[in-house]
Amino acid sequence: MARSKMLDEIHQQPEALEHTLSGALKSVEGLKKLLEKRRPRLVVLAARGTSDNAALFGRYLLETATGIPVSLAAPSVFTAYGAKVDLRDSLVVAISQSGESTDTNYVLERANEQGAITVGITNNSRSTLAKLPGHCFLVRAGKEKSVAATKTYTGQVLMLNLLAHALGAPVPMDDLRRLPDWAEQALSLEAEVADKVVRYRFMQEAVVVGRGLNYSNAYEFALKLMETCYVVAERFSSADFLHGPIAMVEASFPMFLFAPGGATWPTMKEMLERLQSLEADNLVITDRSNQEALRAAKRAICLPCSIASKGPLPSEYLTPIPYIIPAQMFAACLAVEMGLNPDKPRTLSKVTQTL
Amino acid sequence: MARSKMLDEIHQQPEALEHTLSGALKSVEGLKKLLEKRRPRLVVLAARGTSDNAALFGRYLLETATGIPVSLAAPSVFTAYGAKVDLRDSLVVAISQSGESTDTNYVLERANEQGAITVGITNNSRSTLAKLPGHCFLVRAGKEKSVAATKTYTGQVLMLNLLAHALGAPVPMDDLRRLPDWAEQALSLEAEVADKVVRYRFMQEAVVVGRGLNYSNAYEFALKLMETCYVVAERFSSADFLHGPIAMVEASFPMFLFAPGGATWPTMKEMLERLQSLEADNLVITDRSNQEALRAAKRAICLPCSIASKGPLPSEYLTPIPYIIPAQMFAACLAVEMGLNPDKPRTLSKVTQTL
Repeated sequence: MARSKMLDEIHQQPEALEHTLSGALKSVEGLKKLLEKRRPRLVVLAARGTSDNAALFGRYLLETATGIPVSLAAPSVFTAYGAKVDLRDSLVVAISQSGESTDTNYVLERANEQGAITVGITNNSRSTLAKLPGHCFLVRAGKEKSVAATKTYTGQVLMLNLLAHALGAPVPMDDLRRLPDWAEQALSLEAEVADKVVRYRFMQEAVVVGRGLNYSNAYEFALKLMETCYVVAERFSSADFLHGPIAMVEASFPMFLFAPGGATWPTMKEMLERLQSLEADNLVITDRSNQEALRAAKRAICLPCSIASKGPLPSEYLTPIPYIIPAQMFAACLAVEMGLNPDKPRTLSKVTQTL
Repeated sequence: MARSKMLDEIHQQPEALEHTLSGALKSVEGLKKLLEKRRPRLVVLAARGTSDNAALFGRYLLETATGIPVSLAAPSVFTAYGAKVDLRDSLVVAISQSGESTDTNYVLERANEQGAITVGITNNSRSTLAKLPGHCFLVRAGKEKSVAATKTYTGQVLMLNLLAHALGAPVPMDDLRRLPDWAEQALSLEAEVADKVVRYRFMQEAVVVGRGLNYSNAYEFALKLMETCYVVAERFSSADFLHGPIAMVEASFPMFLFAPGGATWPTMKEMLERLQSLEADNLVITDRSNQEALRAAKRAICLPCSIASKGPLPSEYLTPIPYIIPAQMFAACLAVEMGLNPDKPRTLSKVTQTL
């Protein structure tokens, strides 16, 4: 089988991140000035699918780094029920790769009518979303041909870091400039990941666990496994998983854990130990800064770099972009191992419009 | 095997709902007066597990019925990252059966420190949550002995209807007084449900779909299937399901759909037709008011009553309580059919404390 577009696009991420960052810097400063004058009381993020997973990262980062409460929009409140939600003092952000997601665009239009500050994050400068009033931030990842989104996810996550900066959070631009290099280092794991997927050839179900700033990655990895490998993959925060779903786990149950060092590691370590006592089949994704995770895990994918910020933000806030890359490669390689074409999942098309 | 406590407690719901409603009416009016003077700009709901599923119902009802934005709290923002989220103008609600959920109590304490209006919803009047400053609303369902929560979920959903009333939403009390009777009618389906579960004896995975006000029921039914039957059960809104996960569906894939009439039915109908063209194995939960669903579905559980409100709220806003009851019975009966004890799921205990 020819190399998949998905794998090609995964490899375009260092360059895409660099373009996205340099392309957005100026307009982000403009938004920052506006937000200094008019600080929102609430941030509302509206998205679907992979973009909604990026929004989930934004939910944790923005609330943690700015103290402004964040809400993930429920588009059907607007579309199905026609509710008039008071968004006047809010910053409303719609995120869509194609910019043609009907329901999230609808939320942004309602926010515009109320005079809210609105931001669109999209990969397509000619899309409906890019043309709506408000600020538009372009993910400059180049056209995404594979149905399974990869480079647009990391581009959106990067954009949410810039949005935190625009809202006054202490995000050092030098930190963000290191992301393309860390992405490059993550890509160097491809051969190792391609080796590792073989034993998952007949996996039918799985659970992915992440917490806090990596909770979104649990959603995104699970979605890639569902879309490209047809694995019934659930996703939980480690806390939610203990409130019931852990009962599913029996010996050999496949578990994937995002385990950066930092504030979430103690609870993730407890979770790992608990899963080991249940004899689950655990694979941990971590980096060289978390040696304890490497000692605790029987199986791990370890990024060959140390990713830990020393500033005022949580030390692991930069891990989501490099950490998702081995997971993306895992899904792309496993699909091929299973005899599937990750670029053309059955039933799906690239642009999904829902109301 | 003796009849499970879970099934007993499912049957206690009409009475529990009646007690909860009559017990809360007075204190809800007190809260209503306070909220009239001091209208919050945001409602934050903090919960875990089944209580978080009830919160998800609250998220849709409160936003739709009051227009006040709602956010589901991410407790780890407070516990793991120690963030200082600005909750001064918010109404912060913690929901916990036991009242001993450490992280959600922690969120409420931080909100109290800031002078936010706070509400605790719990089944246990002697719990930590009941003793925190703020308003306490008791779910008067009686002690819940089964690990799998049932009567406390419907009690919490009822309480969220009362909270909508306290926030000025047009919730007719006469509507709420009909809920115990509708719950009773749902319970009359037990023999039918017990018959139906037999063919699911070897089900290993499933997807539950709901939308809008029944999205929470999709989460709750899936959680019951995970906890008591160890089925890897995913849960999606019909819109999110189309953005990727539908690729998992092949012929015979077990799907469960909550399908009330009203604003969400057109998209749910489309989803059902799509699933039928994929030859999925669909079971629809609906009521007599949605004859179209009965005609469209090959397999259905139909409540023997018509549940459609004619007031200003979405016509299906009262369906979540009666609709979850056949689903609860389904999980309880299927567990027994599988040779499992639904009252004692492996690995779990009744009170889960997470930070």
